[in-house]
Amino acid sequence: MRSHYCGLVTEALVGQEVTLVGWVNRRRDLGGVIFLDLRDREGIVQVVYDPDLPEVFETASSLRGEFCVQVKGLVRARPESQVNANMTTGAIEVLGKELTVLNKAAPLPIDFNTDVSEEQRLKYRYLDLRRPEMTERMLFRSKVTSEVRRFMDDAGFLDIETPILTKATPEGARDYLVPSRTHKGEFFALPQSPQIFKQLLMMSGMDKYYQIVKCFRDEDLRADRQPEFTQIDIETSFMSAEQVMATTEAMIRTLFKKMLDVDLPEFPHMSYAEAMQRYGSDKPDLRNPLELVDVADLLTEVEFKVFNGPANDPEGRIATLRIPGGASLSRKQIDDYTKFVGIYGAKGLAWVKVNDAGKGIEGVQSPVAKFLTDEIIDAIVERNRAEDGDIILFGADSYAIVTDAMGALRLKAGEDFGLTSDEWKPLWVVDFPMFEKINGSFHALHHPFTAPRDLTPEELEANPAAALSDAYDMVLNGVELGGGSVRIHDQQMQATAFRILGISDEEAEQKFGFLLEALRYGAPPHAGLAFGLDRLVMLMTGASSIRDVMAFPKTTTAACPLTDAPSPANPEVLEELAINLVKQDDGEEK
Amino acid sequence: MRSHYCGLVTEALVGQEVTLVGWVNRRRDLGGVIFLDLRDREGIVQVVYDPDLPEVFETASSLRGEFCVQVKGLVRARPESQVNANMTTGAIEVLGKELTVLNKAAPLPIDFNTDVSEEQRLKYRYLDLRRPEMTERMLFRSKVTSEVRRFMDDAGFLDIETPILTKATPEGARDYLVPSRTHKGEFFALPQSPQIFKQLLMMSGMDKYYQIVKCFRDEDLRADRQPEFTQIDIETSFMSAEQVMATTEAMIRTLFKKMLDVDLPEFPHMSYAEAMQRYGSDKPDLRNPLELVDVADLLTEVEFKVFNGPANDPEGRIATLRIPGGASLSRKQIDDYTKFVGIYGAKGLAWVKVNDAGKGIEGVQSPVAKFLTDEIIDAIVERNRAEDGDIILFGADSYAIVTDAMGALRLKAGEDFGLTSDEWKPLWVVDFPMFEKINGSFHALHHPFTAPRDLTPEELEANPAAALSDAYDMVLNGVELGGGSVRIHDQQMQATAFRILGISDEEAEQKFGFLLEALRYGAPPHAGLAFGLDRLVMLMTGASSIRDVMAFPKTTTAACPLTDAPSPANPEVLEELAINLVKQDDGEEK
Repeated sequence: MRSHYCGLVTEALVGQEVTLVGWVNRRRDLGGVIFLDLRDREGIVQVVYDPDLPEVFETASSLRGEFCVQVKGLVRARPESQVNANMTTGAIEVLGKELTVLNKAAPLPIDFNTDVSEEQRLKYRYLDLRRPEMTERMLFRSKVTSEVRRFMDDAGFLDIETPILTKATPEGARDYLVPSRTHKGEFFALPQSPQIFKQLLMMSGMDKYYQIVKCFRDEDLRADRQPEFTQIDIETSFMSAEQVMATTEAMIRTLFKKMLDVDLPEFPHMSYAEAMQRYGSDKPDLRNPLELVDVADLLTEVEFKVFNGPANDPEGRIATLRIPGGASLSRKQIDDYTKFVGIYGAKGLAWVKVNDAGKGIEGVQSPVAKFLTDEIIDAIVERNRAEDGDIILFGADSYAIVTDAMGALRLKAGEDFGLTSDEWKPLWVVDFPMFEKINGSFHALHHPFTAPRDLTPEELEANPAAALSDAYDMVLNGVELGGGSVRIHDQQMQATAFRILGISDEEAEQKFGFLLEALRYGAPPHAGLAFGLDRLVMLMTGASSIRDVMAFPKTTTAACPLTDAPSPANPEVLEELAINLVKQDDGEEK
Repeated sequence: MRSHYCGLVTEALVGQEVTLVGWVNRRRDLGGVIFLDLRDREGIVQVVYDPDLPEVFETASSLRGEFCVQVKGLVRARPESQVNANMTTGAIEVLGKELTVLNKAAPLPIDFNTDVSEEQRLKYRYLDLRRPEMTERMLFRSKVTSEVRRFMDDAGFLDIETPILTKATPEGARDYLVPSRTHKGEFFALPQSPQIFKQLLMMSGMDKYYQIVKCFRDEDLRADRQPEFTQIDIETSFMSAEQVMATTEAMIRTLFKKMLDVDLPEFPHMSYAEAMQRYGSDKPDLRNPLELVDVADLLTEVEFKVFNGPANDPEGRIATLRIPGGASLSRKQIDDYTKFVGIYGAKGLAWVKVNDAGKGIEGVQSPVAKFLTDEIIDAIVERNRAEDGDIILFGADSYAIVTDAMGALRLKAGEDFGLTSDEWKPLWVVDFPMFEKINGSFHALHHPFTAPRDLTPEELEANPAAALSDAYDMVLNGVELGGGSVRIHDQQMQATAFRILGISDEEAEQKFGFLLEALRYGAPPHAGLAFGLDRLVMLMTGASSIRDVMAFPKTTTAACPLTDAPSPANPEVLEELAINLVKQDDGEEK
């Protein structure tokens, strides 16, 4: 039905007849001539109808926006004055000879030029996706998956499908459940990730696995979360952490080169400890040049509880952040920053404006100057490499609060002062702690199958708090693109990890018995990683929401305004599944 | 950790040091030397340990089956007498120099050499998958998806993901349901196919879509069904049925060439009517040369109710099946065939053995000969091109029973008499009826979105029974590989189809309102097709069960013996979902 895509009709075709199909993006009647912007997934081309073909002209006159039409016509160069250098097709136009309406369109229910709610966009998603911006994102995403697959295929990875109807994870929280009809009263869970299955595939000798796969999490949704999301899931046997990082880094570099013609710089490796210390984040945005500077050692003796408390507490932290030119901040602006760090639990935000560096108290303006000495002031200024006109902001509290609050403030100040550069700044964060202690019990920082770094089971058990894991996160511009680890392949080590996590032998047996059993039969050393595809595409396309890189996303309440899902179930089906609905507060069984 | 895959160590590497990792497939101690068959996903290689390296030899002596090891050694040619031409690595062996045990293996819980139940195989799937036969199937399947994707990518199709958490289909039967936490009392359904979403993608202007996608059906399982299965799902705008068939046929031909080095013959097109007439099936196995021959017109006048009833009934059918050499069938064997057709509702199986063709009643042996004339016998023999020594079997009943029964008998006899050839015999079945009438009401033979062939909505409504659809099925060796159709893109036509199917306007609005609405805004003409990937791979690999081409299939009761899914849910989670379990007959809430 067509000879070319609209968006690909260029000067090379001048003088040729083309047949196009697409949608009327716009119709203008100018000087007795009809100009049609005809659109398909590849772009827009201008079609011109002259009145000298009265029948065709009449049809053209009847067209409205979003009519689906077929056009036959002659490609000709536009007059010099009408050339549009911003369009691929901007140097030509098509002189329409024939015109067939394939399907009419009623007046559109929404006007995308005015402010349209997300709800409306999702309800009429098929119209929303016709907008060139959205179409381009879908094409881009498709190309990304295609390039990833080619890379992984060529690297010897096998694409193997893992089940969607699977077993609930330990706590069961955040699992989507699926009642079984053949085993009444029992449930499948939709996988939060194929973690266990990909490890089992390594134990099956598949050696190198990847899958671009849907994962599910029933959580309260935030702007960048969706109930179903897509992972580029990777697992490999007989490879070290370094080798997995090298392979996946090569994949991402290839992707950026092919898709964006960007040569990513080599990815530096940074320890978790350093990232938290210098950037207050385990996913530092290196486009932002600001850094946290620790000064607790300078403040142990001062007569000011806000400082000397954390300075003398092994679990406290005092970190400073220098903002170049920040002395210009007004009292009101500083108050706003104080409120901002309050979100993260900080009780205040001390500051020092540097007027004359190296001159002690004389050289600065600060409400806390009176608690400090000239030497301390000069030492802090020097350690921050502060110059005249800068401000130094202080976080002083527990390690966690200071790190979180000052890490967040670093990002905010970077944006506010226009310091964040327009580059791609990838890195690997490594050397994570195995566990974090919350309310006295250990939790896995990654997941309970992560291997410790260079420890025997006995050493791990002797001092879990000090153990580092063999895990790695890929971070780009402050976004965690993916994370992974070397896995435990030794049954005793896995049992030890479960024990430290407070999972009893009985519970471990019940929930992971099959995994522990599988580790008994020559499980190979293995490691892997998973990327969040949606987030990767979002970052690469500059989209502001994850919903803009998915064809049919859900709302923030996990609903689909287009199909009206979820919806009430057929009562007979529920009966067959042996489940009842609990009456809701309004007394109605919904 | 390795320099080469075990299965790829060939003569080209003789004289080189290699590092291999893999599993001990077998250890033999022969003449003071240890022979190790070392296995990885690419195959098996022989490693030899001599006692002159005592430490290494001792380690080698300790190995048992399925130990995971690393081997360093020297590739050398095998002595002429020990060359195994059946193995890729059969001309060489590796003289072991170093040996590291990466992980030990306990004695295996199952012996795959003895008869192992499917339950056991699934419980220890990670061991089952290590068997070379299974490993090869997983590799093959991965390669198939890779080749399909490359073909579709290169043909301009976009890989776009459609939701897994979606709206229940009309009847809701066979849908897996997922309770919503944010919308209590409501449910998502897992898709039986992405049909509506792929149509919406066409309405979104995506033009060409494909996806290799999981689909779900909660049905009583048969040998070749699984609760989750995989489709190669395709949809395209602005293409005719012929063009969709040409594209997808090219895809399958490319796949067979690349994977099996098979040049498939061109796919003939056969009407549904012809397939039912000649083969008694809408998915005829053309490797089988037997054909049904209709003879009702010859039997309208005979004094035998079994024949003259169907012969004079417009809804009856009398079909014969000639089996070359079938006169050798014993009474017992004919009785068995009679029982066999009984499964399909046939009340008997008349037969005529041809001893002397063309000699009327004299020339045949048959219990029904007495009801027939010489002329009728000769005409039947001639129409069947029967020769001396053949048997002609008769099905006489309603059209449906005769077609089903004789179609099945045709397949059985073809197998029994070794007539089914060892070739690839693809075809397209086309010109399906739009509807079939069951108990007085119309049902869609494909699905309710299938377009009729060359009919206006008015013509369709005037005579639904006569309408043909623009649908097509790809059949290979009697297996339906895929099916598709041109879709309705006109709102009035879709409303008409719903009306004929007895879906009220209200019901249509409630269930498909969003689709009808979408058809109002310039929906393009579109068509598509879906292949069953599992079945395709099963056919190509010669596997006898769909479970043998999936990594982690479910049992026939839709359970996973490996992970023990489904399983009871956490009561707190059920509470949060606002659902209760119905107590089962045994009084226990399971």
